[in-house]
Amino acid sequence: METFFNPTSVAIIGATEKPGSLPGIILKNLIDMGFNGKIYPVNPKYTDVFGLRCFSSLLDIQDEVALTVIAIPAPSVLDVLKQQALKKIQHSIIISAGFREMGEEGIEMEEKIKQVAIENNIRILGPNCLGVLDNYTNFTTSFLPWERVSKPKKGPLSILSQSGAFAIALLDLAAQEGLGIAKMVNYGNRMDIGESTLLPFLADDIHTKVIAIYMESVDQGRQFIEAAKACSKKKPIVALKVGKGAAGIAAAKSHTGAIAGKYEIYKAAFLKSGIIEANGLEEFIDGVKALTMQNPPKTNRILIVTNGGGFGVIVADHCSENGLEVPPPSPQLKEKLRNSFSRFYVVNNPIDLTGSACDKDYYTALNTCMVESDEYDAAIIIPLMAPQGMTEKVVDHVADTMKLSGKPAVICTVGGTFTTKIKQLFEERKFPVYPSPERSAKTMSMLLKREILKREHAHTSP
Amino acid sequence: METFFNPTSVAIIGATEKPGSLPGIILKNLIDMGFNGKIYPVNPKYTDVFGLRCFSSLLDIQDEVALTVIAIPAPSVLDVLKQQALKKIQHSIIISAGFREMGEEGIEMEEKIKQVAIENNIRILGPNCLGVLDNYTNFTTSFLPWERVSKPKKGPLSILSQSGAFAIALLDLAAQEGLGIAKMVNYGNRMDIGESTLLPFLADDIHTKVIAIYMESVDQGRQFIEAAKACSKKKPIVALKVGKGAAGIAAAKSHTGAIAGKYEIYKAAFLKSGIIEANGLEEFIDGVKALTMQNPPKTNRILIVTNGGGFGVIVADHCSENGLEVPPPSPQLKEKLRNSFSRFYVVNNPIDLTGSACDKDYYTALNTCMVESDEYDAAIIIPLMAPQGMTEKVVDHVADTMKLSGKPAVICTVGGTFTTKIKQLFEERKFPVYPSPERSAKTMSMLLKREILKREHAHTSP
Repeated sequence: METFFNPTSVAIIGATEKPGSLPGIILKNLIDMGFNGKIYPVNPKYTDVFGLRCFSSLLDIQDEVALTVIAIPAPSVLDVLKQQALKKIQHSIIISAGFREMGEEGIEMEEKIKQVAIENNIRILGPNCLGVLDNYTNFTTSFLPWERVSKPKKGPLSILSQSGAFAIALLDLAAQEGLGIAKMVNYGNRMDIGESTLLPFLADDIHTKVIAIYMESVDQGRQFIEAAKACSKKKPIVALKVGKGAAGIAAAKSHTGAIAGKYEIYKAAFLKSGIIEANGLEEFIDGVKALTMQNPPKTNRILIVTNGGGFGVIVADHCSENGLEVPPPSPQLKEKLRNSFSRFYVVNNPIDLTGSACDKDYYTALNTCMVESDEYDAAIIIPLMAPQGMTEKVVDHVADTMKLSGKPAVICTVGGTFTTKIKQLFEERKFPVYPSPERSAKTMSMLLKREILKREHAHTSP
Repeated sequence: METFFNPTSVAIIGATEKPGSLPGIILKNLIDMGFNGKIYPVNPKYTDVFGLRCFSSLLDIQDEVALTVIAIPAPSVLDVLKQQALKKIQHSIIISAGFREMGEEGIEMEEKIKQVAIENNIRILGPNCLGVLDNYTNFTTSFLPWERVSKPKKGPLSILSQSGAFAIALLDLAAQEGLGIAKMVNYGNRMDIGESTLLPFLADDIHTKVIAIYMESVDQGRQFIEAAKACSKKKPIVALKVGKGAAGIAAAKSHTGAIAGKYEIYKAAFLKSGIIEANGLEEFIDGVKALTMQNPPKTNRILIVTNGGGFGVIVADHCSENGLEVPPPSPQLKEKLRNSFSRFYVVNNPIDLTGSACDKDYYTALNTCMVESDEYDAAIIIPLMAPQGMTEKVVDHVADTMKLSGKPAVICTVGGTFTTKIKQLFEERKFPVYPSPERSAKTMSMLLKREILKREHAHTSP
């Protein structure tokens, strides 16, 4: 599998400098990214492309080639594969669209390619895909215009996506959220390699800490569950399953030719294999972000600290909706808080520091309840930045105290430019920030879900 | 009620130039906003404040005073009210906190004030509130630091909020979303004036087109339902009810002293009075934004047009979750689309224009299905901006065609800087844009809800 992410040598079929050509853009992106392996452009029309020697066919390349990247029109793909078989190149990423997703004729072409691949022991990623992006080896087959889509930095998240547009959106969102990416794989029609092959590989990948999967269907049910079960013992997996209702199932079929199948079966499979399911794009990103930054809480006992009463109430509501407990502090703890705070502050759960709050009050609340006491196992913290007493120092007060407690926290804050800066500071210190009460509560419940699934696994698995 | 939003003259009790003083900030904000009525600072310590003549007491003002703004410590409020009674000033906004929300002692003070107010026919907004912001009369009692909270422009939305922090967050979010505000009212402890008094007033306010209510509890159940019923016949009302579960109800009680009561009763009351309920802050803002920009759809038959297949699938899923139908086009309509498009495009519902899409394809899809055909009554349109064929011209193609159809649409698009620009262009043309498939589908269902409630009302009400 390593060859797909770090090939010693790669041939780009149809390479050209002509603007707008897919193989040309892929080659350009690969060079720009600073990939270290050997690159062989292949195109009978040219002798060199972007300063690299160009070969008229695969058979003209004297050296060994580890991988081919094929992004030429669908009807020409089969011939390339036959040549590649002669040269015993055993890995291909087929970017080209126009196969299974196009109906009868496309299915037929895809089946022929599959036949040649099986006979010649060629492993295939695609067709109808973006292929891969590896931020650590600098290898990519992406044809994304990086001036339109932000490229995320290196980091702990790896993405598996059946949908190309979705993979692009995730990269873009990850870059915006400052969330680092290890690997992205988009396998489109998934003729050969899919989740069941990729999960064991990512389970052992040192750069990957969290795995996000977008799926319309799954490749091989039983194998997938086994692979996911083994992987999720090591690393959290978050899945967004789409194609749930009749309308979505029909849409998925048109999209990647996927038979989405009964959603209930997926739901059960996720539970069985320790996968955390997200409902919708934002929940997906939110959960993944929290899992890369924070540990799961030991129990569901949550403390809420706010300087906006209304926000505390909404978080409390959404905690209840999501199976989180918001118990009041014990009389002893209340007494302790009462003695530390102005009499206007509401000493309960939520602790409401009101519009008079200053930075240090967050330290006092969290140190008293999370460090010196064991009544709570996680905190949802709401520092609204409108009141005059609030400055960027609140970030250190919260981050230092929560780190000392060893317990997880998520932050909710809402506002303009100043708030955006505070968000960045929190996230540099690995505290994930959400722009609404409901998303912060939902995300905390996803962290808890990780803990629950891990424990269940420890009991039920061989 | 008009006096609270456009007083001919207003006295600011405790006015001062001292930095950090509440009455001082309120006076400064009021002057800065360009309010046209007469302003009387009242403070025995000064002879002038911010260049205005300052009076030592209310009784020293020779002219009539329409309204007092009281933002001094709670124990001194009663005396001001007694003076005001002597001068027959019949309106007060009491900003001061430290009453009912503080327990026994506070309740007692509040009751005494209420007694004086009733005996002297004084209408009161507050206490424990921000008061009002009127973008058309330029009257405000807000003590918000406008360098930290963005001030929204003039527009069709009026906000009623029991929570001050929430009102601030809404103003800030509205400004960020380019959503214009007519009036904001925050009544805190709601000693006298609340939703039941304000709704009939807003129902007749020419600047208000949509009303957003944040509520922990309601002032007078039956009266509220009658007022809301009458108002929602004219204008959509969206409510965010907080304090739903045990944890939230307890939090609401600590917050504004509100007895949140059984959530089921509220739910029934909302239905009965034609109020659209939102679950959470984002749904609230999203729904309100759509209602200020678009009309409700006639039926739940939705067309999805996308250039990212995966996004189409997720929107279809969330349409089903929210009671929207995504029926396939009729054979005739399919045929027509087939003849207009590249054979790669998926002619179904969603219509998937794929990564090869260009701007004009959106025109073709929408003109064929929404203008020339009656098979759909609304559209969810997904223009992802990563593909090279997509430019800002897509905005005019979509907006012109949808306007011609007379049917509503919401937009879903995800991405960085370029996408943000497209979002602004769409919203200038009154097409609301959402950053996720699930939020665009949810919002369309809220537009539909408005249509359904309006029809039910037409049948059931006297």
